[in-house]
Amino acid sequence: MEGVDHLAFERNKAEFDVNEMKIVWAGSRQEFELSDRISRLVASDPAFRKDNRTSLDRKELFKNTLRKTAYAWKRIIELRLNEQEASKLRSFVDEPAFTDLHWGMFVPAIKGQGTDEQQEKWLPLAYKMQIIGCYAQTELGHGSNVQGLETTATFDPKTDEFIIHSPTLTSSKWWPGGLGKISTHAIVYARLITEGQDQGVHGFIVQLRSLDDHLPLPGITVGDIGMKFGNAAYNTMDNGVLRFDHVRIPRNQMLMRVSQVTREGKYVQSNVPRQLIYGTMVYVRQAIVADASTALSRAVCIATRYSAVRRQFGSQKGGPETQVIDYKTQQARLFPLLASAYAFRFVSEWLKWLYTDVTQRLQANDFSTLPEAHACTAGLKSLTTSATADGIEECRKLCGGHGYLCSSGLPELFAVYVPACTYEGDNTVLLLQVARYLVKTISQLGSGKKPVGTTAYLGRVEQLMQYQSDVKRAEDWLKPNVVIEAFEARAARMSVAVAQNISKFSNPEEGFQELSVDLVEAAAAHCQLIVVSKFIEKLQQNIPGKGVKQQLEVLCSIYALFLLHKHLGDFLSTGSITEEQGSLANEQLRSLYSQVRPNAITLVDAFNYTDHLLGSVLGRYDGNVYPKLYEEAWKDPLNDSVVPDGFKEFVQPMLRQQLHNARL
Amino acid sequence: MEGVDHLAFERNKAEFDVNEMKIVWAGSRQEFELSDRISRLVASDPAFRKDNRTSLDRKELFKNTLRKTAYAWKRIIELRLNEQEASKLRSFVDEPAFTDLHWGMFVPAIKGQGTDEQQEKWLPLAYKMQIIGCYAQTELGHGSNVQGLETTATFDPKTDEFIIHSPTLTSSKWWPGGLGKISTHAIVYARLITEGQDQGVHGFIVQLRSLDDHLPLPGITVGDIGMKFGNAAYNTMDNGVLRFDHVRIPRNQMLMRVSQVTREGKYVQSNVPRQLIYGTMVYVRQAIVADASTALSRAVCIATRYSAVRRQFGSQKGGPETQVIDYKTQQARLFPLLASAYAFRFVSEWLKWLYTDVTQRLQANDFSTLPEAHACTAGLKSLTTSATADGIEECRKLCGGHGYLCSSGLPELFAVYVPACTYEGDNTVLLLQVARYLVKTISQLGSGKKPVGTTAYLGRVEQLMQYQSDVKRAEDWLKPNVVIEAFEARAARMSVAVAQNISKFSNPEEGFQELSVDLVEAAAAHCQLIVVSKFIEKLQQNIPGKGVKQQLEVLCSIYALFLLHKHLGDFLSTGSITEEQGSLANEQLRSLYSQVRPNAITLVDAFNYTDHLLGSVLGRYDGNVYPKLYEEAWKDPLNDSVVPDGFKEFVQPMLRQQLHNARL
Repeated sequence: MEGVDHLAFERNKAEFDVNEMKIVWAGSRQEFELSDRISRLVASDPAFRKDNRTSLDRKELFKNTLRKTAYAWKRIIELRLNEQEASKLRSFVDEPAFTDLHWGMFVPAIKGQGTDEQQEKWLPLAYKMQIIGCYAQTELGHGSNVQGLETTATFDPKTDEFIIHSPTLTSSKWWPGGLGKISTHAIVYARLITEGQDQGVHGFIVQLRSLDDHLPLPGITVGDIGMKFGNAAYNTMDNGVLRFDHVRIPRNQMLMRVSQVTREGKYVQSNVPRQLIYGTMVYVRQAIVADASTALSRAVCIATRYSAVRRQFGSQKGGPETQVIDYKTQQARLFPLLASAYAFRFVSEWLKWLYTDVTQRLQANDFSTLPEAHACTAGLKSLTTSATADGIEECRKLCGGHGYLCSSGLPELFAVYVPACTYEGDNTVLLLQVARYLVKTISQLGSGKKPVGTTAYLGRVEQLMQYQSDVKRAEDWLKPNVVIEAFEARAARMSVAVAQNISKFSNPEEGFQELSVDLVEAAAAHCQLIVVSKFIEKLQQNIPGKGVKQQLEVLCSIYALFLLHKHLGDFLSTGSITEEQGSLANEQLRSLYSQVRPNAITLVDAFNYTDHLLGSVLGRYDGNVYPKLYEEAWKDPLNDSVVPDGFKEFVQPMLRQQLHNARL
Repeated sequence: MEGVDHLAFERNKAEFDVNEMKIVWAGSRQEFELSDRISRLVASDPAFRKDNRTSLDRKELFKNTLRKTAYAWKRIIELRLNEQEASKLRSFVDEPAFTDLHWGMFVPAIKGQGTDEQQEKWLPLAYKMQIIGCYAQTELGHGSNVQGLETTATFDPKTDEFIIHSPTLTSSKWWPGGLGKISTHAIVYARLITEGQDQGVHGFIVQLRSLDDHLPLPGITVGDIGMKFGNAAYNTMDNGVLRFDHVRIPRNQMLMRVSQVTREGKYVQSNVPRQLIYGTMVYVRQAIVADASTALSRAVCIATRYSAVRRQFGSQKGGPETQVIDYKTQQARLFPLLASAYAFRFVSEWLKWLYTDVTQRLQANDFSTLPEAHACTAGLKSLTTSATADGIEECRKLCGGHGYLCSSGLPELFAVYVPACTYEGDNTVLLLQVARYLVKTISQLGSGKKPVGTTAYLGRVEQLMQYQSDVKRAEDWLKPNVVIEAFEARAARMSVAVAQNISKFSNPEEGFQELSVDLVEAAAAHCQLIVVSKFIEKLQQNIPGKGVKQQLEVLCSIYALFLLHKHLGDFLSTGSITEEQGSLANEQLRSLYSQVRPNAITLVDAFNYTDHLLGSVLGRYDGNVYPKLYEEAWKDPLNDSVVPDGFKEFVQPMLRQQLHNARL
């Protein structure tokens, strides 16, 4: 049956042009072609196979990753790939590695925070990988609170050096990827101390290991922090621990673009605005949102295809059983995740635009939109990563028992994804930042300060407090403005309510702490509004291709109405909609599921993932699941021998009642 | 600092007697003493250490489990442990193994479904472990739908044998634990075919492997199905695949208690009621609910202790930062899970009683309560396992980045737990069974049939449809009857509404399919009501010990009001409470969190878990987290050498720009 497409009957049902949808998903034809080309390049190269990695032990796994990384770099050079192509290639290799930090954090940190001279010295070395760098910020005792870092960099004017030191156990650097076994250098964040003054946290370029024999330099203790969640997953990465015992580095290895220490030890601020670092944060977080849509869409692709393959119950007169994708309970769990994958894709596209916009403004010394952009990206990072982590696990459960097998690809996808909820800002902490911004925005409304960007609707707060939804029939919920207004009213009312409650406290900060749960909920409502809005805005653009726009409209409505149903308590308790309207929304949602059903397989085909990338027997393009599951099973190392290691020593004596003789 | 209790300052805050609470948690003093004794026995024996297992490869891991299993059996014999003690010991060894299926499924299946002669023949062999058995039901293509199994057992009257056969690939047995590499025998479920008639699925005792050399017997193909989710976790178990090629077994190896095949091949039902098997299901599921409370409480114990150790932000004037357990957002996520652990404990206690009650009735040929008991256990299995799986992951996230390390114990706890959502009934399928029972109960109300047990409240449905909550102040939500009535009104109204909507369909089965999402929600509401009710009933019993009852009252209110807030949409849209009352409930919830705060550490101490069982650096009893995390890191195999395997072959050529020479 090799070569037969077992899902062809599903693909024939599609009511839209899948090739056009692929371009919409990719963002542009060019982007599609790039991804398509590079993903096939990786998929067709046996050196990049990854189906065996979940049964390797830590050392074998790590060695295997080193091999792939070197091989990838060799191919990048041989094929003369440009930066964008190289980055794509690394992402399709689909294995966390020290190079992620080298290219994603070390190089950008030098670019963003280094002076011109520093860039000239360090970047060429980094670009050729003559040095390998990581980003050493987080400490054993300090994650979210960067200002609480304990590592010190004390300037010694006698020698013109900084002394980098770990004064306590909790000041040990802990978590940085690539640090444990591979990096030769690190950007180390430490409290700058000069002239007896603590000047706060700054970045320093520190060499960790000898370029000759790779041994740690004097005063440096460095190692891997141990196994992490999941099979393979992030265990291909050497997240590390690092301690300094009075390690000396030249003064010119402090990243000095924003502030400097002079030869005499004076601390000087440059005229480069500090806000630039927020620009970087917007960049990093928009990339995380894009990754969320990728991770979620991979899981959804697997679960959707397998839901069409899997049959259970409902056979009539000995005919085949019902495809599980036809069960309404399956649809109600799966299709909102499919819609979410598209929603996150479009909001990440918009964030990419936002980053460009912010950057241009920063270059023109216009900082006016930065706080709003910062709050917005923080909130979207939180919303999309939490929903994606939960969504992957939901997809795993939607595959029933077989989702528990590593060969389904879902366990590893989940385990490798979940840290996104914690890194680059813990998701709860981020929502509190959003909430703080919302409360501030509301408190300034009276003073005539006009809210901008994604908070512009708060400028209409009085109108929104009066708003009553005019939905009378289920179909009314298909109108974009009806949906937007309901989401705006709910978000605005939640923010206003909590702002009012805070103002009842004599100490607003105490009120903020006391009501932080309500603040988190208000921030979430605001972020959901943003995602819904951006999906709707996307639909207002010109979208070519037969049936493409119609399908996206269905997905957009599903995303919005699913959220409405999930958070019905908010909508009702703020009086934004009535019980009857909530019930109509649910009715509409049900009929949207039926509309998406015939297109479901093709909607996940539009992601254009290779079987190599998916790494899932359940999610195979051709739907040929059972023979391949069966085939995979025999590859497990336990099946190397019929009688397993340990049987003779331990189990046979038990069966023969001779345990007293066994060596245990 | 060895020996210092870093959490003593927290323990001093407790307002109740922890020793009395330990007994409440255990269920009785006797039960407490048993668990306490056996858990210490296991914890103090280095042969049972488990801190190294997450970095082993599959073969090493499996061999290690075989050793532990044999050692445990040896100790059980040496110490002359009784059945209950032996079972406790296996559970505290805390590693899935073939013995789980041997004792938990194989032996009970023979006891429950075997005739007296069959029991006399097979049980002594099984009790001495002269044979090792597993339970082979699930097939590659058939999980939830047991009636759809394809394996056949065809009676051959010529030889007085059954021919066991796997007619298709999808009929391969798939998943049974202990099957892959160890079991010598299996209870195989297969379609009985005799006299040309398919008599449906029955159980057969089939020998799989030679007792001499452990090789599979002729016609049998058997192996392990490969890696599953997580580090170690269920990979210590040899879940297996099994195919039969016309394997012959004697007629007397069909389990014949409920129905027989005669020498001539006649299919005969015995007078033993078939309902007996539902009794077994009630038993298995009550055990699953008890396991849920155990798994969730382990996660909560880890997250609570670490939340008291971890500090972040909020330092004033250079003082220590705030303990994260003091953040309201942390409390609002953690304390409902703490309350859930207790709630699940008490509902499992009640289920144990229910099982006894059902068993006694069955023996007296009273089947009247069986359908209700069956629906109720199905629903509670679904509710508690889903909440526990989500809860463990939430606890992991509550530990921030460090929860991602295997040394936190949480990744493995999650991975080993999640299959509970799928096995013994997929959680969505089970809720649909509950819903079916609820709809049937409602449809019979008119005929005067009085609902029993946990559905008794539906007998007051008219009153509940009229109900209006009289909550006026936040404290009103502390009254048990106020809470119960709101939950009853919400559950009843949701069931009635969906039953009415179904009745609008000309074909009720079509209505059932179409509205299955609403049915699942109604069933969930019903199950939540049961858990809340049983918690309240527990509190009406005599509970000795200073402050113990008061603490449990706080937890009970938290559990109920947390659910109310989470499902506010249900309560509002059914008109069971008003928006104002919902907001008062939330206010009350907030103040309950403050009440639980000083007692939190002691409430998790009451679980009486050893550090060995928790297997978590973050959850250590003494709170000495950071030095131990640091110590653990160095044990990773990657740290065996300073320069890792693969560096010289792969990374050094990259650093030296000599990749073209490297063997990749």
